[in-house]
Amino acid sequence: MSTLAYGAHAADRKLEPMAIQRRAVGAADVRIDIAYCGLCHSDIHQVRSEWAGTKYPCVPGHEIVGRVAEVGSAVTSFKAGDLVGVGCIVDSCRHCAECNDGLENYCDRMVGTYNGATPDAPGHTLGGYSQHIVVDQRYVLRVRHAEAQLPAVAPLLCAGITTWSPLRHWGVKAGMRVGIVGIGGLGHMGIKLAHALGAEVVAFTTSESKRAAAMALGAHEVVVSRDPDAMAAQRGKLDFILNTVAAPHDLDAFLGLLRRDGTMTLVGAPATPHPSPNVFNFIMKRRGLAGSLIGGIPETQEMLDFCAEHGIVADIELIRADQVNEAYERMIRGDVKYRFVMDNGTLAAG
Amino acid sequence: MSTLAYGAHAADRKLEPMAIQRRAVGAADVRIDIAYCGLCHSDIHQVRSEWAGTKYPCVPGHEIVGRVAEVGSAVTSFKAGDLVGVGCIVDSCRHCAECNDGLENYCDRMVGTYNGATPDAPGHTLGGYSQHIVVDQRYVLRVRHAEAQLPAVAPLLCAGITTWSPLRHWGVKAGMRVGIVGIGGLGHMGIKLAHALGAEVVAFTTSESKRAAAMALGAHEVVVSRDPDAMAAQRGKLDFILNTVAAPHDLDAFLGLLRRDGTMTLVGAPATPHPSPNVFNFIMKRRGLAGSLIGGIPETQEMLDFCAEHGIVADIELIRADQVNEAYERMIRGDVKYRFVMDNGTLAAG
Repeated sequence: MSTLAYGAHAADRKLEPMAIQRRAVGAADVRIDIAYCGLCHSDIHQVRSEWAGTKYPCVPGHEIVGRVAEVGSAVTSFKAGDLVGVGCIVDSCRHCAECNDGLENYCDRMVGTYNGATPDAPGHTLGGYSQHIVVDQRYVLRVRHAEAQLPAVAPLLCAGITTWSPLRHWGVKAGMRVGIVGIGGLGHMGIKLAHALGAEVVAFTTSESKRAAAMALGAHEVVVSRDPDAMAAQRGKLDFILNTVAAPHDLDAFLGLLRRDGTMTLVGAPATPHPSPNVFNFIMKRRGLAGSLIGGIPETQEMLDFCAEHGIVADIELIRADQVNEAYERMIRGDVKYRFVMDNGTLAAG
Repeated sequence: MSTLAYGAHAADRKLEPMAIQRRAVGAADVRIDIAYCGLCHSDIHQVRSEWAGTKYPCVPGHEIVGRVAEVGSAVTSFKAGDLVGVGCIVDSCRHCAECNDGLENYCDRMVGTYNGATPDAPGHTLGGYSQHIVVDQRYVLRVRHAEAQLPAVAPLLCAGITTWSPLRHWGVKAGMRVGIVGIGGLGHMGIKLAHALGAEVVAFTTSESKRAAAMALGAHEVVVSRDPDAMAAQRGKLDFILNTVAAPHDLDAFLGLLRRDGTMTLVGAPATPHPSPNVFNFIMKRRGLAGSLIGGIPETQEMLDFCAEHGIVADIELIRADQVNEAYERMIRGDVKYRFVMDNGTLAAG
């Protein structure tokens, strides 16, 4: 089945309208009419081949929400008309330890929603900047938010789960003081989720101008990381730090803020390495540095349900499909509060 | 009370015999006739002021075993004649979260066995290269090994607990594959303890010549880390890595060997930083890098009891007090299997 999409034909070309094919709905498949798709910084890296191995045409998009249009004969969990989401993962091996643990995100054969290997034409997956997508039911999430919230639900499928998974894995809850470093697409979700989990949230930003916004998102305290006195006042006082900053920066400045046995988890990967962290910061208080990659399917559902229950969505700016290139330029400048979301209904106008 | 010791009067002076004073036995104190004291690489750093802040005269030594000579009026746990040990810690604040958790090693006011602040003359603590020491009972450990094993028990008080604490904290047990990086004073204890805890032990060394020795210590497998094929064969197969190497080295080579959720814990601190680890190694499998510092008093007792029960001691070379300078030179060359221990009975001859 043919569907309209926005994608790029080469690393140095802008995104443009194109028609792509979706596979016929198989027994276990769900065909989704995509209503909205978030724009993630990973989309830019992929479409511009800033990571090795981008295949063209490249249709990005892995923050997908919409309505079920059709289901295969073996699909029992979804029916036409259901509100659903698709995140970064559309397949995996389904039998390794990671898949069995519901952590498909760590499966060595995880298939990304775009640029992943697939038998379907053109041989690699094409993402959510499109009218429709066909996904195996195992990788489809139920959305329980009100329909009016749908555009702002889309970023939960990547920015939401990428922050939720580490917050949950490291046991964030009431009584803990949690640092969130960086207030962007990921960080703003980290603040909201850590707050809703009951933690006392300390947001770290390089910019005094973000203080009020961070407080509005749910931070109990905002620290400008360029202020040595403000940083010193936090020393040894945080149980966990979620670091969302992908640009290379001084990790020691934050590691030293952890209590004994505290961990700082990185969810951003810099293009060039961070300065090497000081080993004494690890040894003297048994601190840890870790990383986390998106999240598994069951925990993505858990996050969506938690957000529906707590009324949590992303802060977004809705755009038309033909604004995607301009939106990318603004994302690179950091000029977005905090996520662009494409209205996929505008693809038909494209 | 005066006691003979071996110590240094300045950073650029060799160790030499000296007489030092020990405080009178207070109500909670235990006076110990020191039988043996292990030589730790930290002793060299401290006595040569390679770490900032060494106070002179400096008498190193924090791997102390001996017999109780006298106890204060409030001492209930020990009596004259008991076999006891003293490790790296002789005091702490006794009321912070760390002290309350039995992790005095992470107390901000932890007092080291040497070079720590004390009201006793000369204002800083003097360590175990001496005939006697007076220590508050809270920091004295019971030794349940046979008396003949006593020299080889001494290194358990630092090398033993420094490896035991992280192995226990990260839950090493049967069914786990555990890497031990470096086969020296710490690493040889790490192999013995991880083996005794039931883990499958993979020892990593830069030198093919250490293979047989590592197997004899209890390694199930030995990998020469300079062999790329041997390293690749371990990729993703280790649950935990204890890294005892203090020299700067490529951490990525080992981080990549961890399974999902695995941690590598550093117990050595290099003088110059390790090359910065690749963030993808953390993110792609939710791996962690951590550090650990010696261990607390209750877990030191636990380790000593475990070792007594399992017949575990260090592999040592016994020396006279007047051989300490020569032993230091050999330690710096790595020419010791695996720990020098001073026979403190020879101090009187010094």
